[in-house]
Amino acid sequence: MSYKTSEKNQYLDIVNIRALERQFQNSMKKENHSAEADFILGGAGGEETLRANTDDFRNFKIIPSVMHGLFDGLANTSTSFLGQKLTLPIIVSPSAAHGLVHENAEQETIRGVAESGSIMTVSHFSNQLISSIHDSSPETPWLYHYDEDSDPGMNRFLLDTAVRNKAKAIVIGVFGASFGRRERDLTNKFDFPSDLPFQQLSAYTDYPKGLDILSVNNRKHSDITTDRIKVIKKYSKLPVIIKGVQNGTDAVRAIEAGADAVWISNTGGRQLDGTRSTIDALPEISRAVNKRVPIIFDSGVRNGQHVFKALALGANLVALGRPILYGLHMGGSKGVESVMRHMQGELENTMLLSGVKNLEELHKYARVERKH
Amino acid sequence: MSYKTSEKNQYLDIVNIRALERQFQNSMKKENHSAEADFILGGAGGEETLRANTDDFRNFKIIPSVMHGLFDGLANTSTSFLGQKLTLPIIVSPSAAHGLVHENAEQETIRGVAESGSIMTVSHFSNQLISSIHDSSPETPWLYHYDEDSDPGMNRFLLDTAVRNKAKAIVIGVFGASFGRRERDLTNKFDFPSDLPFQQLSAYTDYPKGLDILSVNNRKHSDITTDRIKVIKKYSKLPVIIKGVQNGTDAVRAIEAGADAVWISNTGGRQLDGTRSTIDALPEISRAVNKRVPIIFDSGVRNGQHVFKALALGANLVALGRPILYGLHMGGSKGVESVMRHMQGELENTMLLSGVKNLEELHKYARVERKH
Amino acid sequence: MSYKTSEKNQYLDIVNIRALERQFQNSMKKENHSAEADFILGGAGGEETLRANTDDFRNFKIIPSVMHGLFDGLANTSTSFLGQKLTLPIIVSPSAAHGLVHENAEQETIRGVAESGSIMTVSHFSNQLISSIHDSSPETPWLYHYDEDSDPGMNRFLLDTAVRNKAKAIVIGVFGASFGRRERDLTNKFDFPSDLPFQQLSAYTDYPKGLDILSVNNRKHSDITTDRIKVIKKYSKLPVIIKGVQNGTDAVRAIEAGADAVWISNTGGRQLDGTRSTIDALPEISRAVNKRVPIIFDSGVRNGQHVFKALALGANLVALGRPILYGLHMGGSKGVESVMRHMQGELENTMLLSGVKNLEELHKYARVERKH
Amino acid sequence: MSYKTSEKNQYLDIVNIRALERQFQNSMKKENHSAEADFILGGAGGEETLRANTDDFRNFKIIPSVMHGLFDGLANTSTSFLGQKLTLPIIVSPSAAHGLVHENAEQETIRGVAESGSIMTVSHFSNQLISSIHDSSPETPWLYHYDEDSDPGMNRFLLDTAVRNKAKAIVIGVFGASFGRRERDLTNKFDFPSDLPFQQLSAYTDYPKGLDILSVNNRKHSDITTDRIKVIKKYSKLPVIIKGVQNGTDAVRAIEAGADAVWISNTGGRQLDGTRSTIDALPEISRAVNKRVPIIFDSGVRNGQHVFKALALGANLVALGRPILYGLHMGGSKGVESVMRHMQGELENTMLLSGVKNLEELHKYARVERKH
Repeated sequence: MSYKTSEKNQYLDIVNIRALERQFQNSMKKENHSAEADFILGGAGGEETLRANTDDFRNFKIIPSVMHGLFDGLANTSTSFLGQKLTLPIIVSPSAAHGLVHENAEQETIRGVAESGSIMTVSHFSNQLISSIHDSSPETPWLYHYDEDSDPGMNRFLLDTAVRNKAKAIVIGVFGASFGRRERDLTNKFDFPSDLPFQQLSAYTDYPKGLDILSVNNRKHSDITTDRIKVIKKYSKLPVIIKGVQNGTDAVRAIEAGADAVWISNTGGRQLDGTRSTIDALPEISRAVNKRVPIIFDSGVRNGQHVFKALALGANLVALGRPILYGLHMGGSKGVESVMRHMQGELENTMLLSGVKNLEELHKYARVERKH
Repeated sequence: MSYKTSEKNQYLDIVNIRALERQFQNSMKKENHSAEADFILGGAGGEETLRANTDDFRNFKIIPSVMHGLFDGLANTSTSFLGQKLTLPIIVSPSAAHGLVHENAEQETIRGVAESGSIMTVSHFSNQLISSIHDSSPETPWLYHYDEDSDPGMNRFLLDTAVRNKAKAIVIGVFGASFGRRERDLTNKFDFPSDLPFQQLSAYTDYPKGLDILSVNNRKHSDITTDRIKVIKKYSKLPVIIKGVQNGTDAVRAIEAGADAVWISNTGGRQLDGTRSTIDALPEISRAVNKRVPIIFDSGVRNGQHVFKALALGANLVALGRPILYGLHMGGSKGVESVMRHMQGELENTMLLSGVKNLEELHKYARVERKH
Repeated sequence: MSYKTSEKNQYLDIVNIRALERQFQNSMKKENHSAEADFILGGAGGEETLRANTDDFRNFKIIPSVMHGLFDGLANTSTSFLGQKLTLPIIVSPSAAHGLVHENAEQETIRGVAESGSIMTVSHFSNQLISSIHDSSPETPWLYHYDEDSDPGMNRFLLDTAVRNKAKAIVIGVFGASFGRRERDLTNKFDFPSDLPFQQLSAYTDYPKGLDILSVNNRKHSDITTDRIKVIKKYSKLPVIIKGVQNGTDAVRAIEAGADAVWISNTGGRQLDGTRSTIDALPEISRAVNKRVPIIFDSGVRNGQHVFKALALGANLVALGRPILYGLHMGGSKGVESVMRHMQGELENTMLLSGVKNLEELHKYARVERKH
Repeated sequence: MSYKTSEKNQYLDIVNIRALERQFQNSMKKENHSAEADFILGGAGGEETLRANTDDFRNFKIIPSVMHGLFDGLANTSTSFLGQKLTLPIIVSPSAAHGLVHENAEQETIRGVAESGSIMTVSHFSNQLISSIHDSSPETPWLYHYDEDSDPGMNRFLLDTAVRNKAKAIVIGVFGASFGRRERDLTNKFDFPSDLPFQQLSAYTDYPKGLDILSVNNRKHSDITTDRIKVIKKYSKLPVIIKGVQNGTDAVRAIEAGADAVWISNTGGRQLDGTRSTIDALPEISRAVNKRVPIIFDSGVRNGQHVFKALALGANLVALGRPILYGLHMGGSKGVESVMRHMQGELENTMLLSGVKNLEELHKYARVERKH
């Protein structure tokens, strides 16, 4: 008997992501997958950081300025990153096990990303082989989210596979030397379905079979030092992006170690509760980075105003995690595309109503201030 | 079959506007017009700005000072604006389609305004001809809220009509180059009733028939530059008022372009969610304007204390949008008058209890401070 | 048929004033006096100031300091005011119409005050003659709360009566030139029961019969200037206390006009909504008064910690309004005494746990700070 | 008939302390011991300080910094105090009457402490003899919480007993000269069960029988001056720890009087409501102590993030009160051990995810900041 979930492929009429989240939750419940939904929706500890990630955007106010005579048509959200053209400054965060919410897993996600003109990030914990994901949409740029294993052979195997399948960059997670204590999962005694393996990891000959989530995680090598970053960059010959940066000091360390981009994230509040929201951390990091490398920002982004605020405060790209999974579940690749189009539409609307018509103007003119 | 709604004409016993809002909502629901009520009540996005507009008044505290020996009778709320005498510093904001809430639409509203000794603002999206509205109460001063159309002929037609019908000023909206994303309307799939046309717009020969709200809106020319302001002022030979100002820079731009007044507004939270409340924006704009032109203030005003606070912080007039529609629906012109009298009464009460007896003293002595 | 209410005379076992308030409300409801209870419980407008009066105490934190070796027995709350010895720094605020809650009205209240070793304030709107109240407990010190009438004869009559009945001071209210807009009363269409007259006012020969609350109030002369204060002081040859001070400037004006004490009050949020709480106003006023005259503080005080905080921030006496009426209703004079004893007990407890054993030490050593 | 409660001895699967608290409350209710549960759960007054103790931790944010290359294994929470090795920086606060929640009372608690590698504090109000508690786990370090009685013979008796039974230090409470007014207990008319005596107190020949809680408490000598501290230290020849410090001045006084450690506590909000939370008090006290003596911190700690924050802000040890009683009730000594292991696990997790691997690094590198 195998894990069954959505096979949908349809465009979604999205009013807002909150409503989509409720639809997702209800649909998963109907499929008897509430524990899996909780795994996706939940955060660490008392979920203070999970909530703060979204709520704290409210403390930053957009101050529209519309009388400068800039307009001459529609808003343009296009940008570029590592030489890739994007139609919008929104990309996909790595998240584990897309097979939990759609039968076609990551292959379905990347096709939605392709239609959106965006970039996919493939998680270390993908349910499919990197080659299968890449082959499903060979023209779509993708980043590989690399977690260092305690076995050096495994590490070479994963990096070689990513390079061979044309990853545009290696995303190295620096989330500390442990795994978030997610109380929903502990209450549900959640573990991944045994018939939904992490195929890329399992493809390594020496990889032990039947490990549960904590055991798999405990294989991770926790000490991602600046030296390791240099080694990985040299070995892969790819740009490296340091993900999980939460303060200015680590951002500087990352850049000094050769990072080609800094990715601000607290993993959507899934690792350590009690930390500040990423939007509260952004100004400090933005000052520290000082435009030397691009900044990617995630955790808690749920609408176009949030994207606008993060960009105005110094981010170059914003990444979405959970909302992509909601779209994937409710509509497959078309659902993913619908989420992206919805966010793009809200961003365009926010730009036009704030007085900027493209991202260059946004970075230059947009005024977002902390409510005093 | 045509759209049916209230034909009431009665004075209202108003305890507060919140209670009146509930009565309005219930009555519209009984008439099967909940979607229309939502169109009126709702705001953009998650309605954060809609709520903040009213809630943020709480952060500003009135500090009464009553021992200066100023009193010698009742409070006097009279003032003047563009040469017009007003019995109170409260006027009517432009709002679309008064026909949604009363059979006699804008004609009924303006008669209530007349009785209140106030000023009417006629929206671009009125359900009646400008001439009919004006004829309904020829002595009542009114402002024309002008949205620029993409067809220059239409623009001339509208301005000519306004001038011919003795508009006292042209109100030019500068709300950015798009239309608010109102989630209630998207959920309700709201559109204006087809048998409730925007008569003034439809009177223009070349105006396409059967446009829905978004199409109509998309005809709007979004780039209201300072040059356009000068052109409109020169063409109409009327004072111009720039409405939608949300920061000091735009206020200065407006004045430099010849604005005869600056109207602070975020359209009642209907355009862009995530912006600051107008009461939070007022001090910055008031400093920038520095008494060079009068300031009109709207969005979120629901009682006499709110009016008092806005005036004390630098506004010269306060405008009401939704509350006027509640009054119109529940009591026709007498309902509109009741809302105005209620607000005036609360303002007088606030003035007397704060230690000022007229608006000159209010602007000079009233102490309103942000809670630290 | 005449107004009927409590005839109780019993000691109360008070856990806290909130619980007593609920008992009061339930008992009044049982007697079919909910509108009268609302008159007592309610405040002006949206009751923001009513709530802030009590809630804002939370922002001020007591910082106990207990290692100075001061103790040698129990706490002592005794103090003096205008030459009167008090066993506690808590007195009775003026409130209208005690007959609403107890058959014996103000005569019952003053007997409870007598047992508590405190001071009574008799309202302008008492249900009994000043002489009856005074005769009911001839040794109890009392203050007369004087509202100026538009008829000078009435004013002389009231002051003469107060002097003849040995009032210790004249309390002059400076609450602005109007009357609070209390929405509960407007909703209930509340007026005082016709068979529960304001006897002292009615005793004046020329006083019109059958006036309702607003009419009575409108007889008040609103312009309490510093000159009038001097006149009243000279005429009565009694100390004068200025009640209703809400800022430092008015406090200074009062002192310069000869005030023997300054009484900080916003009438329990019953006059103007949207003003700051009295505890938020206290530090400014305390600095302005600079110990030149005693400060009485009221509005929102509901427990011993509140009293302690007000005293530590500069008040000399704290006055209670509504809680006295709750005690009067539930237990007559013994109920009033129970409320006083309860508050005194909580104050003693707070003093002992904060490290001060008498009010002198409290004013010198107690540390209360606004939460940053 | 004697008081009956839990005889459990089992390990607990703890998701979080809030859930454990609910289990405790439900279990006590089933045993008909809701008043006893309220005695344990409740706080003084309106319980503002009780709530703030836990809630205020939210205002302090952990800012992880993980790229310094420190890691090389697991986290290590071991530390030492007064020459004792501890496997974790968490000890047991004194709390009265463990017999209320477990048949074996303090004897059971100390066995759980032994297994945890921690330190026990025995309350003045223990249900068992000090010698019985000590004999139950002779190798476990314990502190004696000494309250000074009005009878000097009793004081010598208690100190002699503590010394003879190898207490590692005398904890002297400085909570002010009274007893918290706990409204739940007043409502419940709570008193200790008569068949659950304070055995150590009762063992003193001259101790009066049948005293209720307030009477017992009133025997306490309130004036703990710096002189008394010197006397107790000299008499017992043991280190002394001053518990109940809430500000920098008292901390300095304690050190100058010879304190070997300062214990920050507001007794879990059980003494005086309206004081600041201990986490809000910690920075001031930490500056005043300036590392001269160790700081113990308690009140409101409910998870590993809280422990981490307190340590990062200057505490050396954190003490747990109520959670220990929950564990004791639900699982006896194994339940106590489960609570300790749970807290240790959360602390380790927080350390690893914050970028520090032992307490030395935590005190040096951890960044915790008040949210601005």
